[in-house]
Amino acid sequence: MGNTDYQVIVIGSGPAGHHAAIQAAKLGRRVAIIERREAVGGVCINTGAIPSKSLREAVLSLSGYRDQSLSGASRTRRRPTMTELLRRCHWVVQREVDVYHAQFARNGVDVLSGKARFVSDREIELIRAGGTLRLSAESFIIAVGTQPASSPQFPVDGRRIVDADTVLELPSVPPTVAVVGAGVVGVEYACMFGALGSRVTLVDARHRILEFVDNEISEALMYHMRDLGVTPRLGEEVTHVEADDEGVTAHTKSNKRIRAHVVLYAVGRQGATDGMNLETAGLEADSRGRLVVNDRMETAVPGIYAAGDVIGFPSLAGTSMEQGRVAALSACGVESERVADLFPYGIYTIPEVSFVGKTEEQLTEEGVPYEIGVAHYRELARGNIIGDHTGRLKVIFHRETEEVLGVHAIGEGACELIHIGQAVMVLGGTIRYFEEQVFNYPTLAEAYKVAALNGLSRLERFTRKAAA
Amino acid sequence: MGNTDYQVIVIGSGPAGHHAAIQAAKLGRRVAIIERREAVGGVCINTGAIPSKSLREAVLSLSGYRDQSLSGASRTRRRPTMTELLRRCHWVVQREVDVYHAQFARNGVDVLSGKARFVSDREIELIRAGGTLRLSAESFIIAVGTQPASSPQFPVDGRRIVDADTVLELPSVPPTVAVVGAGVVGVEYACMFGALGSRVTLVDARHRILEFVDNEISEALMYHMRDLGVTPRLGEEVTHVEADDEGVTAHTKSNKRIRAHVVLYAVGRQGATDGMNLETAGLEADSRGRLVVNDRMETAVPGIYAAGDVIGFPSLAGTSMEQGRVAALSACGVESERVADLFPYGIYTIPEVSFVGKTEEQLTEEGVPYEIGVAHYRELARGNIIGDHTGRLKVIFHRETEEVLGVHAIGEGACELIHIGQAVMVLGGTIRYFEEQVFNYPTLAEAYKVAALNGLSRLERFTRKAAA
Repeated sequence: MGNTDYQVIVIGSGPAGHHAAIQAAKLGRRVAIIERREAVGGVCINTGAIPSKSLREAVLSLSGYRDQSLSGASRTRRRPTMTELLRRCHWVVQREVDVYHAQFARNGVDVLSGKARFVSDREIELIRAGGTLRLSAESFIIAVGTQPASSPQFPVDGRRIVDADTVLELPSVPPTVAVVGAGVVGVEYACMFGALGSRVTLVDARHRILEFVDNEISEALMYHMRDLGVTPRLGEEVTHVEADDEGVTAHTKSNKRIRAHVVLYAVGRQGATDGMNLETAGLEADSRGRLVVNDRMETAVPGIYAAGDVIGFPSLAGTSMEQGRVAALSACGVESERVADLFPYGIYTIPEVSFVGKTEEQLTEEGVPYEIGVAHYRELARGNIIGDHTGRLKVIFHRETEEVLGVHAIGEGACELIHIGQAVMVLGGTIRYFEEQVFNYPTLAEAYKVAALNGLSRLERFTRKAAA
Repeated sequence: MGNTDYQVIVIGSGPAGHHAAIQAAKLGRRVAIIERREAVGGVCINTGAIPSKSLREAVLSLSGYRDQSLSGASRTRRRPTMTELLRRCHWVVQREVDVYHAQFARNGVDVLSGKARFVSDREIELIRAGGTLRLSAESFIIAVGTQPASSPQFPVDGRRIVDADTVLELPSVPPTVAVVGAGVVGVEYACMFGALGSRVTLVDARHRILEFVDNEISEALMYHMRDLGVTPRLGEEVTHVEADDEGVTAHTKSNKRIRAHVVLYAVGRQGATDGMNLETAGLEADSRGRLVVNDRMETAVPGIYAAGDVIGFPSLAGTSMEQGRVAALSACGVESERVADLFPYGIYTIPEVSFVGKTEEQLTEEGVPYEIGVAHYRELARGNIIGDHTGRLKVIFHRETEEVLGVHAIGEGACELIHIGQAVMVLGGTIRYFEEQVFNYPTLAEAYKVAALNGLSRLERFTRKAAA
């Protein structure tokens, strides 16, 4: 110990790796972070969350989607070019990469580029143009993330058949798109293409989109997606696709053919652990390239930690950051905190969806007696001011203890608003919190108060009935 | 008792009166609400918060202010006409009035129009076209709100000299405006005219705008207002104004003359209790027409309650609603809750400002040892995505207990975000809450985490220094 090149080496520079490296450096450790791509930031910053969320913002602004709802009149939609849409994305991506670099520099984290391969549980080989470099460390934090699952039936060519990593390379907005896979990525892109005026077919072998989302919310989302020109084909499995000069044909198990200019293949992702020689370090990835860790983010091999998408569920940037931070605390021997087990989900569909805690379906399954309170944005002054008449927020609470069990929202600002409910849940407030506290007016946050009043009067009706 | 026309009569149908009437009706009382204007909703809905916040949204959208920051390039601003701007406002106002009426009807609240005048502490006279009506009740809730203070030196004519009630009647956006009074209303309109391209002079005898706002935030706001073309003239008292055919001249005590097309007179408001014959009921208003109440919102006369702007500080719609609700609970003999003493402020300037809890200045005065943590929106992915590079959020916490003492924000979404900090404060969380919890990515809410990490590392530097 003490005689290694670094105290902590972090492999991968996405949100998990970034937070791990900064946390370890703040604790005074000698830290290096390794990135195999040209730019730091991982999938999140380079081809994932950041460009797709920037694109979403550009879509809402340039397509006239927002103004349309604001003016109440239907405007002729103009279809922006891909160049217009991506100008903003590139700027934001570059800006985030700069922020990461500045933070690494300020905290004295060495940034090394190349591909890491274990040679033992305390040493790696860094492979890069011009040769390899051997580096030893007391601890490693693996935060290599994931890559799109590939399949020979879906030969991604970046032109007719694209995946999440290549969709942004499309030269123009296609008039028709078939999205294969109704997970978060598939559904988010289906909405964006819909808002841009593409006709979209969304195919998935499952019978529901986003199965982990509360039914009421995912049904509302499906309703809005149809409005955007998205046609769902659920319960349909795509067996293979064929590209030709004019477009692509997707063949389903039920012998349907779905014709589109472009197919977006968005069926799952796998841990980017290929070629890392994990076995040399005594590690083993599962069939989807992922690693298993304990509460402290440590793998089966002492001193080797993992964080972020590479450990699977929930694969959200926010949780990944926190996992990275906890992994670094563990690696540095700081009394270990655990990653909070209540965390929010944010899904940047159009409109956006967010939730924290349990769904009605989960609670029903568990036999928990609950009541719900719902607020529609159209009941809120702020909803009418911004022209969002369809958003809603649902608070689920325990019928006896009045404890808040879950908050589910769809509509403008949902991903921000959810944190109010999260705070009340984490800090043990009940539904009465929303009834009794004062909210700024006019805000969307008032939805909590309206939902609470709605829920409490449902409860009262029930009590009156029971008493009668 | 029991033989009165109503159990509860609410006078005034703004946010306080509305919430009072609905709450009393939900408790099964016979309730009437009285409104002297043509439409229910009070100042808030008809000439105050709702139209001005709708106008603000229209200004941001139609002036290209938002797109400008989004595209990063400077666009030629088009000055929208007053008709375009107000189209949206009228729709929203009508919509809110409809919502109020529907809620009154659903809850069986009688809506009576006319001006109320006390004839005893249990009876009023309702004066309206065609005669008067005598009505008795067990309890009265006075929620008549305020009206702009008037002064013979500022002869409001709705054309050259306007006040908060008449500013929206201006036929066009004036090229130059002098705003007299740098309180919330004056500052909000100064920002709107600035964003519309008017050159604005903002005059106030005080030496700071919005004195109750944390210094760092009000300074930042002043900076942005100058950018919008607002010139402050603080420490200057306007003695009188003179209108002529081309415009108005405002004369200051220091012998300056401020020339503008329009003067907006926004110096204070007074309780709208004139002509209510308060003394007949045994009540007395102060020199500014306002009433004093206790914790339960009851005036000096048992059975007569007051709520909303007519009782003065803080005169925010959100608190008014809650005051109305508590007044109704008290009037109905329900075990009395008190209005929460921690409440958020929302100020719809451009950019918007919001805060909860204490300012640095207050804490310094009280000698409380505090530390601050600041997050700049430009450090947040979401800030860069929406193009708000100037927003910031400051968390103030106790240096020893780590209790959160205040949250102060300026920037997009500030009025929504503040509720996260409010929940943590009300429910007794510390600054560690923000460090340890997971936030959706990319959101503005992440500002709390960034601010907490910033604050905790300041604290650590301090501790290290103290230990050294």
